Amino acid sequence: VNARVPEFADVVAAAARVGPHVVRTPVMRSPAFEARVGRQVFFKCENLQTGGAFKYRGAMNVLLQLDAARTPLVITHSSGNHGNALALAARARGMKAIVVIPRDSARSKIAAIEASGARIELCDPGMPAREKRLAEILAREPAELVHPFDDERIIAGQGTAALEMLTEVPALDVISTPVGGGGLIGGTALAAKALSPGIRVIGAEPEQADDAYQSWRSGKRCAVNAPQTIADGLRGSIGVRNFELLRSHVDEVVTVSESEIIAAMRIVLEDLKLLIEPSSAVPVAAALAGKLGPAGSRLGIVLSGGNIDLLLCPFLRGEKPLK
Amino acid sequence: VNARVPEFADVVAAAARVGPHVVRTPVMRSPAFEARVGRQVFFKCENLQTGGAFKYRGAMNVLLQLDAARTPLVITHSSGNHGNALALAARARGMKAIVVIPRDSARSKIAAIEASGARIELCDPGMPAREKRLAEILAREPAELVHPFDDERIIAGQGTAALEMLTEVPALDVISTPVGGGGLIGGTALAAKALSPGIRVIGAEPEQADDAYQSWRSGKRCAVNAPQTIADGLRGSIGVRNFELLRSHVDEVVTVSESEIIAAMRIVLEDLKLLIEPSSAVPVAAALAGKLGPAGSRLGIVLSGGNIDLLLCPFLRGEKPLK
Repeated sequence: VNARVPEFADVVAAAARVGPHVVRTPVMRSPAFEARVGRQVFFKCENLQTGGAFKYRGAMNVLLQLDAARTPLVITHSSGNHGNALALAARARGMKAIVVIPRDSARSKIAAIEASGARIELCDPGMPAREKRLAEILAREPAELVHPFDDERIIAGQGTAALEMLTEVPALDVISTPVGGGGLIGGTALAAKALSPGIRVIGAEPEQADDAYQSWRSGKRCAVNAPQTIADGLRGSIGVRNFELLRSHVDEVVTVSESEIIAAMRIVLEDLKLLIEPSSAVPVAAALAGKLGPAGSRLGIVLSGGNIDLLLCPFLRGEKPLK
Repeated sequence: VNARVPEFADVVAAAARVGPHVVRTPVMRSPAFEARVGRQVFFKCENLQTGGAFKYRGAMNVLLQLDAARTPLVITHSSGNHGNALALAARARGMKAIVVIPRDSARSKIAAIEASGARIELCDPGMPAREKRLAEILAREPAELVHPFDDERIIAGQGTAALEMLTEVPALDVISTPVGGGGLIGGTALAAKALSPGIRVIGAEPEQADDAYQSWRSGKRCAVNAPQTIADGLRGSIGVRNFELLRSHVDEVVTVSESEIIAAMRIVLEDLKLLIEPSSAVPVAAALAGKLGPAGSRLGIVLSGGNIDLLLCPFLRGEKPLK
């Protein structure tokens, strides 16, 4: 793993590198949604990316810098989307992939990773358990670790989604993404602050997994272990490089409740006709709660992914949310 | 109502007229869906149109040819989407609208029409009951009738969706839409046969509401009264002008079962991350059943709308389909 914190130039280089390999996802608007919040809102639809999430951008940015002959095997731990992205990118690059995945991840994500050709290694929930399992495997098999978020190449790759949106939709006042390990918010902040110095960059987190919020408030990197949130992509804690970018490039971190996340998923389905996963609904919920800047200002949100077990979705089953 | 069967020139004129007023909806693809059917498939996303359905195109094409001072009140009957489209278009043009709607229509559609500012008049299901109620109202209130499908201006307006798709995605081998009253398939066929003379135009219908299929087979316009199908937008029977276009411009009509429709909705939600209503899923189901031409050929489908009560969706409730 490369230890450097990435810069805007890395995002620009990543965009040139991954451009021919990723979907240039559409930016969508909804009059019904805009009426709810009294402002223009632009949704960058990474749920329509290869693999159903932005993660393919970072994974491709790493693997395009490796050589399959010298690096035939890559490995990672992931709550799902990064694992699938790495599996798909490895297959596209003629490599093999191993993915360590917590056993409480969405069934559809585990199935997708297997279908994408990776070898699955299940582990217990929580970052320490993931890293322990990964170390065990690395001790007996030579493989290149592609960390899901704490890697400058990953962060730069994830920033290419915002780079695309900001070149298509100029003059955004606020841009927001969910915060899990911090790859997406880090890359987004690099792109946003370089292209629009006056823009406000806001990370959005579940209250139940608010390590980035605590880190931002305290100025000290905090972790949460195995948090209970429906936003399964955001259960990890913020990484070292990601925390540096959070401090230097992100203006604020806000949090929302589980029921707000679920309501936001439903509203996106009804207003935008788009299926998003709970993690993606976190900044949407923050917008609906008025936490992403005032009415009248122009907002951009990266919809991070759309991978969800339909039968696990509370509002579709008519059940109460977790909390 | 104007009695002329429309021509391609009417679609071109409609496109110029409505262009500044409608959403130029995106054309989407899904690698997962294409893997299922072994061919390239292009989805024209009219579920993302104003009002959540293609119907806004036809309604705007009519109202832009009327003058609010001379025609302050318009009226129609509709299973939902045309009514909402007319209400929205009337509001945009400074007119009032009355919508006669069967009482078994989706709750979300009735609510949307009221929210769009129209006066609702409920009637019994089935075309005869709709027309009776409409005649009763017209007998006491002077209003301009804007028929949901049997009107050359409506047909021409609906054809603008295919016109857009065919200019963006050339060399389609097959194009398909659902068939209800026949406004969408009629306008689509006019555009398709003019722009791509070799293209195959296929209408898709529920088995449970197969009047267009019967009409196409027999060469005689048939009707079905109050058919039971989840595809609530396709319960009407094909119109006079629409049947003429079916005979002259449509190559084939195919049918699918209720369970195939429901499975197709779910597949579109999972593969494309898009919410579509059951009517829109009918040509998708036909594609999945291999009824829209061979693997390898390039297929275009107009996804007609996305208005659905989430809680009425059988696969989301875990219930069995109607049949």
